[in-house]
Amino acid sequence: MTDTNWSVPETEVLSAVGDALNAGREAVIATVIDVEGSAYRRPGAKMVIEADESAGSVTAGCLEDEVRSIAADVRAVGEPRVETFDLTGDDGTWGLGMGCNGIITILLEPVDESYRPIVERVAEGGDVGVATVVDGDRPRGERGYYTPKDGFAGDLPDWLRAELTDPTAGLLDRGEADTLRIDRDERSVEVFVDGIEAPPHLVVFGSGPDVGPVVDLAKRAEFRVTVVGFRGAQATSEAFPAADEVVAISPANIEDEVDFDADTHAVVMTHNFVDDRLVLEALLDTPIPYIGLMGPEERFEELLDAFADDGVTLPENALDRIYTPIGLDLGGDSPYRIAYSIVAELLAVANDRTPQHLSNREGPIHDRVDSRTVDNVAPE
Amino acid sequence: MTDTNWSVPETEVLSAVGDALNAGREAVIATVIDVEGSAYRRPGAKMVIEADESAGSVTAGCLEDEVRSIAADVRAVGEPRVETFDLTGDDGTWGLGMGCNGIITILLEPVDESYRPIVERVAEGGDVGVATVVDGDRPRGERGYYTPKDGFAGDLPDWLRAELTDPTAGLLDRGEADTLRIDRDERSVEVFVDGIEAPPHLVVFGSGPDVGPVVDLAKRAEFRVTVVGFRGAQATSEAFPAADEVVAISPANIEDEVDFDADTHAVVMTHNFVDDRLVLEALLDTPIPYIGLMGPEERFEELLDAFADDGVTLPENALDRIYTPIGLDLGGDSPYRIAYSIVAELLAVANDRTPQHLSNREGPIHDRVDSRTVDNVAPE
Repeated sequence: MTDTNWSVPETEVLSAVGDALNAGREAVIATVIDVEGSAYRRPGAKMVIEADESAGSVTAGCLEDEVRSIAADVRAVGEPRVETFDLTGDDGTWGLGMGCNGIITILLEPVDESYRPIVERVAEGGDVGVATVVDGDRPRGERGYYTPKDGFAGDLPDWLRAELTDPTAGLLDRGEADTLRIDRDERSVEVFVDGIEAPPHLVVFGSGPDVGPVVDLAKRAEFRVTVVGFRGAQATSEAFPAADEVVAISPANIEDEVDFDADTHAVVMTHNFVDDRLVLEALLDTPIPYIGLMGPEERFEELLDAFADDGVTLPENALDRIYTPIGLDLGGDSPYRIAYSIVAELLAVANDRTPQHLSNREGPIHDRVDSRTVDNVAPE
Repeated sequence: MTDTNWSVPETEVLSAVGDALNAGREAVIATVIDVEGSAYRRPGAKMVIEADESAGSVTAGCLEDEVRSIAADVRAVGEPRVETFDLTGDDGTWGLGMGCNGIITILLEPVDESYRPIVERVAEGGDVGVATVVDGDRPRGERGYYTPKDGFAGDLPDWLRAELTDPTAGLLDRGEADTLRIDRDERSVEVFVDGIEAPPHLVVFGSGPDVGPVVDLAKRAEFRVTVVGFRGAQATSEAFPAADEVVAISPANIEDEVDFDADTHAVVMTHNFVDDRLVLEALLDTPIPYIGLMGPEERFEELLDAFADDGVTLPENALDRIYTPIGLDLGGDSPYRIAYSIVAELLAVANDRTPQHLSNREGPIHDRVDSRTVDNVAPE
């Protein structure tokens, strides 16, 4: 067994499941369904184990070997299994609060067709709430699929769907997962509800060589990436192998060729004033929350002048959605460092965060620690 | 000719020069020495051109083909050459203020032994100011190498070294490059002074599978990366192929085995409480400005308790250098997203930036643009 695929972007774990299904390869998927104590990975963390390789992770590396050996049994027996690992005694080896000192419960299932709807939904950029029976008065592995639009599909009985609809909607909305105990009449069922969000969608407008690093880093940051080029010759899958999709179109058909919704983020770097202007005007007609525009302030003002000259007015919320100069202020002007600051900004916006140090340099931690530091100054 | 290496991390351009030197391959290095108007790349941006491939970039892609064809001549003739490209007429094609509408002057030189001291100095993690004659009363390509410790080495005459010492020290300190005109007595020389800073050094303590994404992203963000593991079996170059250096040592010898200076940044993720504690204590004895500690606040407080129990007091500046929880607040808890936030924090600290949107959401741009937006609201 090899560990080299441990650290693939999360988005590659589900595609690994899809590959196994399509190739008819036997595989087992391990999912963290419950954690007591602090953990490096949260419920919903997944690992796919095949005969000679695995992808993804359920801990910081402390359980993966054991999970692989159990997966071999699960593959042989062909039945889903729930295993609980109590690592509370392992502090010395694995450290306090670092994901290997809690009690971790993992569902191991043979990968079968019941996973295909999940893989396909996410591949299309859709979110899905997956409710899987893990214990109680229903068969383990019985599964339902929830979307806000269509409610529950799948095998779950109506009474269980009714009980699960509200909590599943909430978990999916937050992109979280949890194991719920449902008691109804004489029946009691434990269900793992997994709010699986599709990766956010990034559309990069441009096909110049500076686009490559943005695509490369955005994929590692778990975005689904579409490259849109207006010069067909340059906008090819060969030029941007990491992209999920490369399309060469005319600026006039942007809205016909690409779907833009509240999970879509656009980076505009065509290096062409006219193209950037057409893209900006088209994007402002869509609901997308992020429009990153490459170039200095002066260039944005030239674009605004061009709009003004034509009597084009920006929608009121335009400035809440246009980010220019693009990126977070991380320093450096090499192509990869520029791309790094762009994708960092994409993450902050997609996850609705205000970019700052998690240590919050002036914040409560430091106050608390300052007092501790004083305590530490004991007479020698 | 292929363009696929255009977007290598900047740090790979100099190593490409070293590879060509060591392999005895003919190569030409193109360096931006002057820019009028706004440019995507600044003076000092480099591109290495060999017979069938190139690495690095001098513009956003608008000149690279032309530079390649000139490089073929330079390779044939074997003499350095200065070429100026006036792109001010190309707005329609390349857009305002996006690096292809300025006047860009490029020095093209056959790669020869005069580049070896630069490659070797930077490979050792040292900065070097390179002064190269580009025009005037000295031979083009005549070159000197400046370090704050030893001053100038190389071919430049003493009078020129004297004139160049102060400006070169300043440019190197700021990591900038500029072309200077030196007039002395009857002589006039144009010298391109390139303040070449070695990539900042990252030392990652840990050898768990979550280290891989940090190494991978830090290399793309132009860090020189050393992985230090205390479990020899896991800390191997095979496990971390992207790392520049992988060492397996005992926590007791940290300071003997690794150099720590003001350009060194440490990420502590051993997942082992005892190891983390030993690393932290050792690092606080060094001048390094950044110590990122993986794990929740509670764990850091446990570490502080352990120090206190042993009467160990933290240096006064400890809390200015310890960043925990590690990373910028960009959201996401997958291994790659955690690594992304860590390396984003490394960049901000290494470049002395306060992480925030470059568009400074509440700042002057928006005020200015708000007024413009109002202007745009013309009666239909």
